[in-house]
Order: sequence, then C-alpha cells, then structure tokens
Amino acid sequence: MAEDIHNMAEDIHNMAEDIHNMAKDIHAAENIHVGRLAALREEMKKVGIDAYMIPTADFHCSEYVAPCFKAREYFSGFTGSAGILIVMQDRADLWADGRYFIQAAKEIEGSGITLERIGEPGVPTREQFLKDHLRAGQTFGCDGRCITKAEGAHLAKVLGQRGIKMNTAYDLPGLVWKDRPELPSNPIWILDEKYAGESAESKLARLRKVMKEQDASCYVSSKLDEIMWLFNIRGGDVEANPVALSYALVTEDAQYLFVQDSEITDEFRAYADKIHLSVGRYQDFFDFLKTFEFKGNILYDPNFLSCQVYQTIRDSLEAAGKRAEDCVVEMNSPLDYMKAIRNETEIRNFKDIYIEDSAVLTKFIYWLKKNVGKIPMTEGSAAAYLDHLRAKVRDYIELSFGTISAYGSNAAMMHYEPGEDGGAELKPEGMLLVDSGGHYLRGTTDVTRTMSLGPVTQDMRRSYSLTANSNFQLQDVVFLKGSCGMTLDICAREPMWRNLMDYKCGTGHGVGNILNVHEGPQSIRYHQRDAADLTPFAPGMTISDEPGVYKAGEYGIRIENILLCVDRGTTTDGTFYGFTPLTFAPLDRDLLDVSVLTPKVRELINTYHAQVLEKIGPFMNEEELAWLKNECAPL
Amino acid sequence: MAEDIHNMAEDIHNMAEDIHNMAKDIHAAENIHVGRLAALREEMKKVGIDAYMIPTADFHCSEYVAPCFKAREYFSGFTGSAGILIVMQDRADLWADGRYFIQAAKEIEGSGITLERIGEPGVPTREQFLKDHLRAGQTFGCDGRCITKAEGAHLAKVLGQRGIKMNTAYDLPGLVWKDRPELPSNPIWILDEKYAGESAESKLARLRKVMKEQDASCYVSSKLDEIMWLFNIRGGDVEANPVALSYALVTEDAQYLFVQDSEITDEFRAYADKIHLSVGRYQDFFDFLKTFEFKGNILYDPNFLSCQVYQTIRDSLEAAGKRAEDCVVEMNSPLDYMKAIRNETEIRNFKDIYIEDSAVLTKFIYWLKKNVGKIPMTEGSAAAYLDHLRAKVRDYIELSFGTISAYGSNAAMMHYEPGEDGGAELKPEGMLLVDSGGHYLRGTTDVTRTMSLGPVTQDMRRSYSLTANSNFQLQDVVFLKGSCGMTLDICAREPMWRNLMDYKCGTGHGVGNILNVHEGPQSIRYHQRDAADLTPFAPGMTISDEPGVYKAGEYGIRIENILLCVDRGTTTDGTFYGFTPLTFAPLDRDLLDVSVLTPKVRELINTYHAQVLEKIGPFMNEEELAWLKNECAPL
Repeated sequence: MAEDIHNMAEDIHNMAEDIHNMAKDIHAAENIHVGRLAALREEMKKVGIDAYMIPTADFHCSEYVAPCFKAREYFSGFTGSAGILIVMQDRADLWADGRYFIQAAKEIEGSGITLERIGEPGVPTREQFLKDHLRAGQTFGCDGRCITKAEGAHLAKVLGQRGIKMNTAYDLPGLVWKDRPELPSNPIWILDEKYAGESAESKLARLRKVMKEQDASCYVSSKLDEIMWLFNIRGGDVEANPVALSYALVTEDAQYLFVQDSEITDEFRAYADKIHLSVGRYQDFFDFLKTFEFKGNILYDPNFLSCQVYQTIRDSLEAAGKRAEDCVVEMNSPLDYMKAIRNETEIRNFKDIYIEDSAVLTKFIYWLKKNVGKIPMTEGSAAAYLDHLRAKVRDYIELSFGTISAYGSNAAMMHYEPGEDGGAELKPEGMLLVDSGGHYLRGTTDVTRTMSLGPVTQDMRRSYSLTANSNFQLQDVVFLKGSCGMTLDICAREPMWRNLMDYKCGTGHGVGNILNVHEGPQSIRYHQRDAADLTPFAPGMTISDEPGVYKAGEYGIRIENILLCVDRGTTTDGTFYGFTPLTFAPLDRDLLDVSVLTPKVRELINTYHAQVLEKIGPFMNEEELAWLKNECAPL
Repeated sequence: MAEDIHNMAEDIHNMAEDIHNMAKDIHAAENIHVGRLAALREEMKKVGIDAYMIPTADFHCSEYVAPCFKAREYFSGFTGSAGILIVMQDRADLWADGRYFIQAAKEIEGSGITLERIGEPGVPTREQFLKDHLRAGQTFGCDGRCITKAEGAHLAKVLGQRGIKMNTAYDLPGLVWKDRPELPSNPIWILDEKYAGESAESKLARLRKVMKEQDASCYVSSKLDEIMWLFNIRGGDVEANPVALSYALVTEDAQYLFVQDSEITDEFRAYADKIHLSVGRYQDFFDFLKTFEFKGNILYDPNFLSCQVYQTIRDSLEAAGKRAEDCVVEMNSPLDYMKAIRNETEIRNFKDIYIEDSAVLTKFIYWLKKNVGKIPMTEGSAAAYLDHLRAKVRDYIELSFGTISAYGSNAAMMHYEPGEDGGAELKPEGMLLVDSGGHYLRGTTDVTRTMSLGPVTQDMRRSYSLTANSNFQLQDVVFLKGSCGMTLDICAREPMWRNLMDYKCGTGHGVGNILNVHEGPQSIRYHQRDAADLTPFAPGMTISDEPGVYKAGEYGIRIENILLCVDRGTTTDGTFYGFTPLTFAPLDRDLLDVSVLTPKVRELINTYHAQVLEKIGPFMNEEELAWLKNECAPL
C-alpha cells in the first residue's frame, strides 16, 4: 500500500515535470530567437564552422553600432551596448558585463541562450569556453571585419595550440538576416577649427612625428572616432555617435580617407582638397590595401585595427616578398591618446557648455521634484522633458546617448532605458536615476544624478551618501604624473569596499568631443581590461567619475560628474596632477546623511555646492533659484 | 687700458679652466674604471660591437648576484643591487633607479660614465638611447645568458626596425676581467616538509595541472628561487639568497634539474632519487636542450627565462622542422605565483618567527636609545649588534640581506650600507634608519624602523608622521578580489602626494620563504614596471609596506612592516581581502606628531601598539618591558 502511494506520487511528479518541459518547449518555440539561431546553425553546418562568435561590433570595433550591425541583438534579443554571443550546434552563450546582468537575463529569456556573467566565479572566459567546448579538428568562426587584430591573433594562437582551426571569412549573420538594414549613410560635415582648436594639418604633423619616432612610414586606422578627430570631420552613421563609416591611411607625405560616396558633400570635397586629403570609396579600401606599395614599417593599434585589415596588409606584404612580423609596429593608438587631451579651445568650450548643460539638468530636477505626483509622469516622459530642455541649448546637435531614466528597481540595471510604452510611472516616493548628455558644437556632456521623488529609506540615504563619499574622494585626489586609472580607482571604491560592497562597472571613462561619449584611452577601473587602461593621465583629459550602488530588485544610485585633469604643481619629487569638475549640478539634499559622509567629503560637497550656485545660479529663474539656494546651503 | 684688463681677466679665466680640465683628466686617469672600460672597448672593436650592455644579472636574471657576476660593478664602480651599464666607444651610461640616484652618482664619479636617472624628465629609456646613438648597420651586443627572452626579443625587434643588428653571443666582460671570481659552489640542502608545508610531488602535480590547462607538455625555468621552491631544496650560491645555480625542465612525466656536481651531497642524491628527479650537470644544460625531443608545446615565462635558453630551444625546434612561434606558450610563471602564496604551515611559521624577529629588533631599539652618546657607536657597530642578536634566534640561518644602518643624511640613500670603516658615528641627535632581516627555518623577515637618537626637527616629525599615515592607510585597506598592487598603492602614497611629495621606490614587494627577500609576482607600485605587477593579491601572500620620506643631504625615513593578505569575507558583491601585519615592533613615539596623523591612523597605531605589547612584551626583560609599555601607550 505504502509502495503504491509512493509510486503514484512518483508518476504524478513525472507528469508534472513533463508538463513543465512541454511548457518550456512551447515557450522556446514561440521565441523568435530560437528560430534565428536554428537558421544560423544551418549556415554554420554548410561551411563547416562548429562555433560562431557574434561580437557587438561594426567593421570598426565601435562600442555603439548602426542597426545593420546589431547581429548580436538580432540573434539573442539582448539590446545592451556590449556583449558577445557564441553559437554552437547544441548551445548558445552570451557574455555580458556587470552593467547588464539583470537586463540580459530578462531579454534572453526563452531563447535557450545561457547567460555568462563576465567576472563572476565559475564563469569561463570566451577563450576558456572555446577551448573546453571545441575539439581538435573543429573550427571556430567569426567575421574578421568585426574583431580586432589582437583578438584574432590571440584566438588563432590559443585555439591553434589545441588543433582548433579558425575561419574569419564568413559573415554568417548576413545570410540569415533577410531584412537586415542597409549600411547607414549620412553626409560628412566639417568641424570648424574654432571648435576643434587645431587644424587637421597640425594633427597630421603630430601623427607623423610619432610615426618617425616609431620608425614607421605609414599609419593605418579603422577606428572611426580617431579618423574623425584627425581630419576635423564628423558624420552621422551611428545614433548619438557623430562618426562616418571610414578607413584611413597616413604616409610620410600623403593621407587617404575611404568613405561612402553618398556621404560626400561639395563642402567636404572642397575641404578635402584644401587639406590634400585623397578620398577613396569605402568599399574599395581592401582593394586599395592589396595593391598599395608599403615602403617602410606600418604602424597600427592591434586592439583597434580590424583583423581583416591586418590580414589584407599581411597578404599584401607577403606578396611583395616581405614578412609581416618584420614590417609592423604595434602600439596603443597615438591618435587615440592625442584626441583624449583637450586643447585650450576645447577646454574653454567644454567649461562653458558643461555649465549650460548642468543648468538644464538642474532645471529638470526642480521641475521633476515640483511636479511628481501632481502631473502624470513616466520614466519616458520625464526623459523626454529633459531631452526637450537640452535641445534648446545653443549649439545643440543631438543627444550623446539615449537618456537613461530609471525609477525604483529599474535603476539597478545600470544601462536601463524606458521602452516605447514610457516605462514605469513615477510616484512621489523612492528614487529616479537619470543619466543623460548631449553633443553640442562646444563639446559633449554626460551626467548622472539620482533624485528622491518623495519618502526614501534610511538604506537608500546610506547608499547615496556612500556614493557621494566615493565620488568626491576621487574628485579630490592629487597624484603623481605617470599614474593611470588603475592607480586612482580605489579612491572611489574604498568607501564601498570597506563595507564589502562594489559596483560592477568601471568608475570612469573618457568623454569624446562630439564623438563617442565613452572614449579612451584613459579610464578608471581597479583591474586592467585592455592595454589602454594603463595610459597615464595628462592635463586636458576628461574623465567621468561615476560610482554607484545597485541593489537588484530594490534601487540603483549613481552620481556622475565629468572631471578635467589639471596640473597641481611640480616639486623636487615630481609633477603632480589632480581633477577639477566640469559638471555643476546639485546633489540631492534629502538623500545625504551627514553621519555617513566623511568629514572631508562633507567639506568638499559644501565647496562644490557653493560653486554650483555661483555657476548655474545665473541660469535659474526666481523660483528655481530659491530652491537651488536651499539645495546648496552648507550641510 | 680697460680692454687690456678685460683680456687679462679672460686669459686668467682660460688658464683656470685649463687647470680645472687637467685636474679632471688626472682624476679620470686615476680611476680604475676608466682603464677597465678602455679594455672593454678594445674587445668590442675586435668583434664589431658598437654598444655593449652589462645588466645586473647572472645567467638566471636574479636580482642579487654572486661576485663573479658583478660585471656592472667591475666596470662602473656602482655597487647598487640594480642598474644597467651601456658602453660605447665614445661614452658609457649607467641607468639607475630612484633608490640609487645619490649613491650611484657618488660611486661613478671620475669614471666618465653618465648617470641616467630612470624616470626623471628628459632621461631616455635604454631602448630610446640605443635607437638614438646607434646607426643602421651598427651592432648592439650583450651576453644572451644575462638578459631575458622578452627583453632580447623586444630589443631585436625595435633595433632591427632601424637596421641595427643584435649579437648576444659574447661575454666580453669575461675577456677583460682577469681576476674574476669562480662560479660559486655550495652544497644543496633539503628544506624539510615541516617547513616547506608541501611536498615536491604535490608542487609538481600543481605545475602539471597548469601545463595541461595551457596545452603545454613541458615547462622550462632558469629562475633560481622558483626551482628551489619547486623541489624543496635550497643552496648557498648568492649571499643572503639561499639558492643554487640551476636550470629545471618538467615534462608530463619527468623532472630534470641541472646543478653543479660540486654542490651535490649524498643526502641530496638520495632525496633526488626519492622524488624521481633526474639530476644533470649545470654546464650540460644547453647541450641537453639541443638534443631534447620536445613533444608538445613548451611553457615558460618570457620575463624570467634567459634569452639564450630560449634561443637554444628555438634552434632545437627548428632543427626538428618546427616553428618556435607555434610551439611555445608564454605566461607569467605559474611557479612564481604558487610560491608567493604561503600554505598553512608557512603562515603559522611566519607568524611565529616574525614575532621573535620583531622582539629582537625591539630589544635593539631599546639598547640603541639607551646607549647612544654613552658608548662609542657607529652605523656599522649598531648593525653588528643587531645582527648578533638576530643570530641567536632559534632556527637562524643567515641575514636575508646586508643590514642597512643609515644615520642622518646617509638614510636619504635608500639602500645605503655602512662601509668597512663602520660608517658614520652615531650621536644622540637626529635619526637612524635600520632596514634588516633574517632567514630562519621558519621563514624570512624584513623590517625597517627609523629611530630618533635625540633631538629631532619638527620637519622630521612631520615626515615621520606622514610616513606613518602612509603605512597604516595601506595596512588597513579592504579590497575586492582581483585587485593588484597598482590598485592599492595610492592608499600609501596619498598622504605624500597630497603634499606634492613622493618616495622614489615601490611601496611593497613580496618576501620569499628562505629565498629572495624581494620576490614577486605581487608588488605594490603606482605604475606598471613588469608584467607580474598586475598579479592580483590572494590570501596567503606576503607583501612589504614600506613608504618613506627621503630628503637628499638631510635625512631618510622609512617604516616597513610585512603584511599577510587575508580574506575579509564574501557578499553578493564579491569576495574581499585585506592585510594583517606580521611585523610587531613599536613606532618611534618621539617622532609621531598627532596633529599630522589622521584621526583614523592615530586609532590604528594605538590598536597596533597594543598588539605589539601583547605579542612581543613576553620577550622583553623588566627594563625593556617598562620602556615598551611607555612606547606603546595610546597616543
């Protein structure tokens, strides 16, 4: 009898499991990504590729890419700005970083894809994963235009040592993705020297000086922002990133640019003639390389140049009887470094535009706090209001990235953006995180403030105050020339780490001048992610300072100022640098707990608030000013 | 008339200049290094080498080397532990780091050698120097046994791109240095497992696991301390570094050690048999490589393996029809990393011996303060007294480095050692810096204290207190797993940098277990010096914490504790580590200015002093204890 009941229970249990599995299958079958992955797997079989990698990249290893390059999103559903998909016949895995753990898990649900949380215990690196899941004789594949030379060479070597082959010849997503958008094509425009602060001729001369130092007679680049910077031009091929799809090659006495014919205006043509720039067609670049006579050594950044550009140059050299290893000079991009250091014109313009941009944000904060709970408001409508204010600023071009407006637990997803339905409704309680910025002719802004909309918990106040400690400790640091972001990061993280807390993202990134809002080579993080992370700070560099606290399912806090690196003086012991803020928007008084702030940070916030009042006060109306005075009163 | 006087004055001026130059020439002619360099230059001419480099290295890229390897000192007079000499026909240049700026300038005086102060503005790197001073077709040379594979490959590439040749075949110093000492040869001894804490078999198994992960079937090492660690053996071939000159090769199923016949004892022979260690002759290693059949990939650390070992392997592979690039796996040494993490036995022993060693140092401090000005005392005699106390400790083997005892302005030279005349006389005023340590069977110590011997200036007290802030801020840090020394260094430097001060050396180095007192891979410095500097900390690692203030011509201050990395807990945000001190010796109360200490550091020092009293109090006699109680009373 007991046994019968036991067996019956087991049957019921098994039936429940079957139903559960059926439900899962039905759910999976409904998921469009399952079908897309199946189609990709068919293509993989045809060309004998056992694991195919789809990074988040265009042909220029850009961070943000045009819609036609969003193959990773097409196949996985994950919409984040970074992440890599590897598809095999029996599985598919998506690597995402800490900013996207929550969002990615949500978006890939039902696709059958496994989320690999980068940096978490037990999560293999892509390299380790490939080594573990491919056997000798099998083939790993990806589109050689979409990975860097460094990555391609590294994978070829480590996989090769296991007898795994590598094939970079195929754009398999292109075969499956029938309604793939066209390559973007928008007119190229000239950035006047009154905004660029330096002529293209002068920049070319500086590049040639580095080429000479490095014994190179040629520099090749497939990196869009540095090409734009070098020639003082801008494009419109990536939303919020005013770049034009392009390749460039600079020799001792000539400069070549390859862009789409459709992007060339008369104005650009005249400008190109003036600066002796030879303009070729974008689609002809690889043919150009095949026949180009490389005379001396070739300089490039292996972490930026695409694998396929390198391979084409290598083949061209070998056809001329040379060994590529003997003729290439690899180094961190000299243009990327030059670009990162603002000249006097840029510094002056940045200082101006940051004050105007901060004033807009401050007006928005006032409007938000005044109206929340009184007029209908969603994450999306609030963002739209801020975007609308920003668009009215003189010299406004476009947003520097989609405004992040995240309420309550949505803010725990660092790069959350409200959907087309407007996202969550804002209520007069808890916190709203808004991370936003604009491109203006006078510079590019990026700022985050987290605002209380009504009653908040003591835990929220503590987390906000710890974040303020982090932010201001970094802002206040003095450091020896030669220090890089890895040297400085702990100044921001120390208040978190001491409480066994951490935020799963870098503390700071460079900010381009009407280019990419995230740009290198400088960064602030505690461990090295790429070669450029060790680039020392130099006066004129801009860097974000954006620590935070993110509690999944609860809330997210971030306070972000952009800082300018400045000289602090030279003694017999060396030359010292520090930072000065460009952003001047008030912190949230209701979220600051002076018992959590360190005495030093409390003093720093008071000084900062006095500057905020002085600098953006003049932009406020009477009502706003009265409020701002109160917000900025000494703590 | 006025013109006559003017001309006369000019004549006199010229005569004075001539006499000055003659004096300089006479001085130069008297300098033995001038003659040695001339002889070296003759040898360079014979073999067609235009610039010859003499690093501070034996055939194992050791930091400290046996007398027969001190060629750099032989030719330059500079006795420091690091520095590189490059000799050309018309000049010779010595590169020295910040620890040695003052000392090196003094020691090379009259040799005609130019001091190149590493890291100072306008000072070229060696690479830049060679590129600037050699023309295409000229030849750069060095002894390939004395540089690493990484350095050799890098120089060959960058010089090659300028058409400069490289020749690593000649030991030119050997041709000039007639009375060069013999290779050292001292018996190898076995480190009992009760001290090593892990068997050689277990270590070999761990190494083979890494080899497998890296797809390698062979590991090659020329690094002495890791070879000693792997096989649980020690030697006596370098003063204060108990290592035996050796090479090692480990395959999937065999292990080979190459040592001098004269070092092999019966005990060692029996032990080698027991652990199935094939022992070859030191001088046969290269022939062994030439004929060894390399089956799979070869793993090594390019920053440790000597250039010549690599070249021999490469030639051997090529003779077998393979391309070296396809068969080598380069990574930071896995043994160096394993060695750096103390096992439980080692941790227990280290904790014990550091207390006994700290007690000895504390007794010395008491003796010093009590007797200075009363009995004759020099830097040397004080050091000898401390060495004598240390030698009486149970398990004492030898000093872990020559005791640094530096009085007054001598202490501004970080690695000053009193000469054979005993050095400066100690007076009851100013400060004495003593940096010392010992090898014991239970571990290796390294500790620095700076003591007031009588009246001191307020500036000295301020500098000492800033140093205490630096030391304790680092000791107190909590950090996320994955952090390395570059992440942490600013915790120590911040108090200095804020005052536009800096010390020209790293903040911390690993401490070997009866091996090299300076060992990697972990280190604490603000910028990257070598690949290993990015090694993350792990519980069980030991690291020195030794900030300081050095004022040329005035004084030098250093406070050095050895810290043990420990686990601080795991939360949803990650795993966190911190440090706990192993050293327990009091700071100098007379040198501490509480108005300079941060409130936090003041509290930390009070806590530390309570631990000092508790841990080393029991080793003090009544008189010493009374004094120590006062020294350790809360500030």
